[in-house]
Amino acid sequence: MSSPVVRHARREDVPAILSLIRELADYEKELHSVEATEATLLSTIAFAPSSPDTVSPSPESGLPITESTTPTKPARCFVLESPEGPVVGIALYFYNYSTWRARAGIYLEDLYVKQSERGKGYGKRLLVELAKELVAMEGGRLEWSVLKWNEPSIKFYESIGAKMMNEWVGMRVEREGLTKLAGLLG
Amino acid sequence: MSSPVVRHARREDVPAILSLIRELADYEKELHSVEATEATLLSTIAFAPSSPDTVSPSPESGLPITESTTPTKPARCFVLESPEGPVVGIALYFYNYSTWRARAGIYLEDLYVKQSERGKGYGKRLLVELAKELVAMEGGRLEWSVLKWNEPSIKFYESIGAKMMNEWVGMRVEREGLTKLAGLLG
Repeated sequence: MSSPVVRHARREDVPAILSLIRELADYEKELHSVEATEATLLSTIAFAPSSPDTVSPSPESGLPITESTTPTKPARCFVLESPEGPVVGIALYFYNYSTWRARAGIYLEDLYVKQSERGKGYGKRLLVELAKELVAMEGGRLEWSVLKWNEPSIKFYESIGAKMMNEWVGMRVEREGLTKLAGLLG
Repeated sequence: MSSPVVRHARREDVPAILSLIRELADYEKELHSVEATEATLLSTIAFAPSSPDTVSPSPESGLPITESTTPTKPARCFVLESPEGPVVGIALYFYNYSTWRARAGIYLEDLYVKQSERGKGYGKRLLVELAKELVAMEGGRLEWSVLKWNEPSIKFYESIGAKMMNEWVGMRVEREGLTKLAGLLG
């Protein structure tokens, strides 16, 4: 039996990626919040070359071979192809930083495996790929967030060595709040 | 009376930055957790040129003029110079990503103003600069985390328009856990 393949997303994967993003939002009861389109994903993710000769991450270094990340294109995306061919899972991430360690890390923004493909270890496989990239880049931490009510996911994450950061809470400013804050001091 | 100046950090600011990082860790009762050194900060932050002719952010575009950010050098740092000259505040940040919005944003990793310089609006000034950069780059969200017990900070953040992300909890894998996860599937 052939194995699933995990590789960095190419531009032609975008329709499948958008479809999985929409499924995940639906699962989180937030489908109405998805503003992403194929065009905006294409301009904000650093993609691997479409050439089938290029394998990313590099088998030698373990590091990604993609377009450069920039402040306005900070994301990379792993896709998981099932043995039957189609993309059935994604791990979309960017690079974070720990000041205390003075070291970069990886923040996993979205992890999703299609409902019909659950129970095959694909989620774990994607997390392992992220950990491998982090080790290859000598990074510090792999981090992500989870909805507190999502107990099955939390149990799974703890089973693979993750610790809950219970003592912290996130803060966010966006949309009108952002414009207001930017203009606060004239 | 002259005003404080907020600008992107240059290499020569690193001793002052490290000193403020250590003060903040001490306030959070975690001084022993600081592994950062001048050398590691120098290699992981994208600095503005030392030339006094270059002002960052650019007065024209509002965008930073620094070394390029990369996956292993993802951070930028604002410093606040008091009217008397020394650096008394920092805002160290990197670029995050919202999948639903398919848009980059700013994550504020550390905000700190020296104890003796509190009550002068310097923290707010640094947050406003971040919001201005975010607007200039057409980014989506300004985000950060705060310790739940730090009520004075939470009240301050809410007063300038931030919302608490109460329904989410962070997860983290690092050190031995990371090596183990990277090797989990052989």
